[in-house]
Amino acid sequence: MRHLLLAAAALALISAAPSPPPKYATPPSVLAESKPNEWQAIPADDLMVIDLKNGRRIVVQLAPLFAPVHAANIRALATSGYWQGAAIYRVQDNYVAQWGNNDGERPIPASVVKKPPAEYERRLAGLKIVPLGSSDAYAPKVGYTAGWPVAYDPKAGTANLPHCYASVGVGRDLSPDTGMGGELYAAIGHAPRSLDRVIAVVGRVVSGVDVLASLPRGTEALGFYKERSSDVPIANVRLASQLPDPERPKFEYLRETSASFARWLNVKKNRRDEFYIHPAGGVDLCNAPVPVRASAK
Amino acid sequence: MRHLLLAAAALALISAAPSPPPKYATPPSVLAESKPNEWQAIPADDLMVIDLKNGRRIVVQLAPLFAPVHAANIRALATSGYWQGAAIYRVQDNYVAQWGNNDGERPIPASVVKKPPAEYERRLAGLKIVPLGSSDAYAPKVGYTAGWPVAYDPKAGTANLPHCYASVGVGRDLSPDTGMGGELYAAIGHAPRSLDRVIAVVGRVVSGVDVLASLPRGTEALGFYKERSSDVPIANVRLASQLPDPERPKFEYLRETSASFARWLNVKKNRRDEFYIHPAGGVDLCNAPVPVRASAK
Repeated sequence: MRHLLLAAAALALISAAPSPPPKYATPPSVLAESKPNEWQAIPADDLMVIDLKNGRRIVVQLAPLFAPVHAANIRALATSGYWQGAAIYRVQDNYVAQWGNNDGERPIPASVVKKPPAEYERRLAGLKIVPLGSSDAYAPKVGYTAGWPVAYDPKAGTANLPHCYASVGVGRDLSPDTGMGGELYAAIGHAPRSLDRVIAVVGRVVSGVDVLASLPRGTEALGFYKERSSDVPIANVRLASQLPDPERPKFEYLRETSASFARWLNVKKNRRDEFYIHPAGGVDLCNAPVPVRASAK
Repeated sequence: MRHLLLAAAALALISAAPSPPPKYATPPSVLAESKPNEWQAIPADDLMVIDLKNGRRIVVQLAPLFAPVHAANIRALATSGYWQGAAIYRVQDNYVAQWGNNDGERPIPASVVKKPPAEYERRLAGLKIVPLGSSDAYAPKVGYTAGWPVAYDPKAGTANLPHCYASVGVGRDLSPDTGMGGELYAAIGHAPRSLDRVIAVVGRVVSGVDVLASLPRGTEALGFYKERSSDVPIANVRLASQLPDPERPKFEYLRETSASFARWLNVKKNRRDEFYIHPAGGVDLCNAPVPVRASAK
């Protein structure tokens, strides 16, 4: 049964499923003890619902706070049905799963900005940031703001969304093109942080990233599927706000300003439950993603 | 075609496939220009060849430098046929794929140490380390030694193998048990560094990690497969040294002390090829894994 205890570590490390308080606090136990008012509902207009023809569903939360023009483009594309008949056509191991209309030419809504500004970073001013308090290899400082992980540079006065597992970015051509939003990818391996400030991160997968991460890897260079018949067809992409309320997927995140978030982050840095021998004393930003959960209301 | 350029970034970021030198050096171009004598062959006794019944193959390099007793156990188990009829029985998204005989009782070779010492870290003394030169959230210092990434603490005089993507560790019961080596797992998501110094890391997948990472996720708690019929059967696990020479998979790694490794690491930290806008100025240890490639001789 030894595997069960590695399993226990797994639960404590990454699951947000409520569980009875153990002898020592664990990330799940802290979340289980959090108060309902510490959680913030995610607007239905910020949730992109991707339904695959195979019946699986992926839900992406958009980040207009960091990429407002790209987010508006993606909303317009979704509501216009741009991705009906689209597909996941590239899956590269330890890197990305990418979807869209690939080379297919599709009508683009008039409201879509064909060449959006470079929303790779934004001004730090106006953001209230809760610092992570651990070192980062890519940015002077990292932390959390408005429910998102954030990398920032106080000297330059800039902030950007980091590429973490499940982050969603916009495929683009060479700079200064930033991609209009028709081709999107999600990170499915170790956080590809070298892409930070190089590509527009527009959101994160809040449900179903495992659907993308478990797809067969493409056998062509860069993980493209060799045969179009290998593509994974997308049935529909809609905003949650397009669905009748009873059918809408609803999610909420734990406010980084809440007492439970502070406890949760401290436990992520210093695991003391019995499986652990050496509390790490720190945590990588992408190993402490903002807790997000499905909500009833 | 914009997706091809994100793809180009992907190639530069993680592929080690030789390619013609571009205008700016990329990690693959540096490797393509490396000299044969900068690469070190991996001993056949350090390569565990896992053949699945579905025909796919996974090759794991053992790390006797860090976990000599566990490595010896795993060699003994492999040569005794311990894993014939074993299976991959747990796949947890963004965490681990785990295999072994699970709860099945199997004869264990007499040479296997049932309760190995806690090889979670080793003495720093005796290791020649090439520092990474970037910050780390989990250890005072990180770098490379003898073909492995390493986290270390000069004050404490200790060093350990980090849990990176494709790292292989030993499932265990509660401390002080360290696991005898019969149940192994590979990391298939963002580096679970919180497990560093908590579990014995015994090696890394050098070929076929995509086979593990693309498996269906288990639907039970912690990613265990609900039905035994979902288990992925293992046909055979052998050391490369057990195979006739012509049939042996052979691999080599780029010495961290080589000029090409230094160039490669610098390029990993500072991408300047045309897709990139902001050279990161640093790289996470697990985003700069030691280049390993198949070799003919």
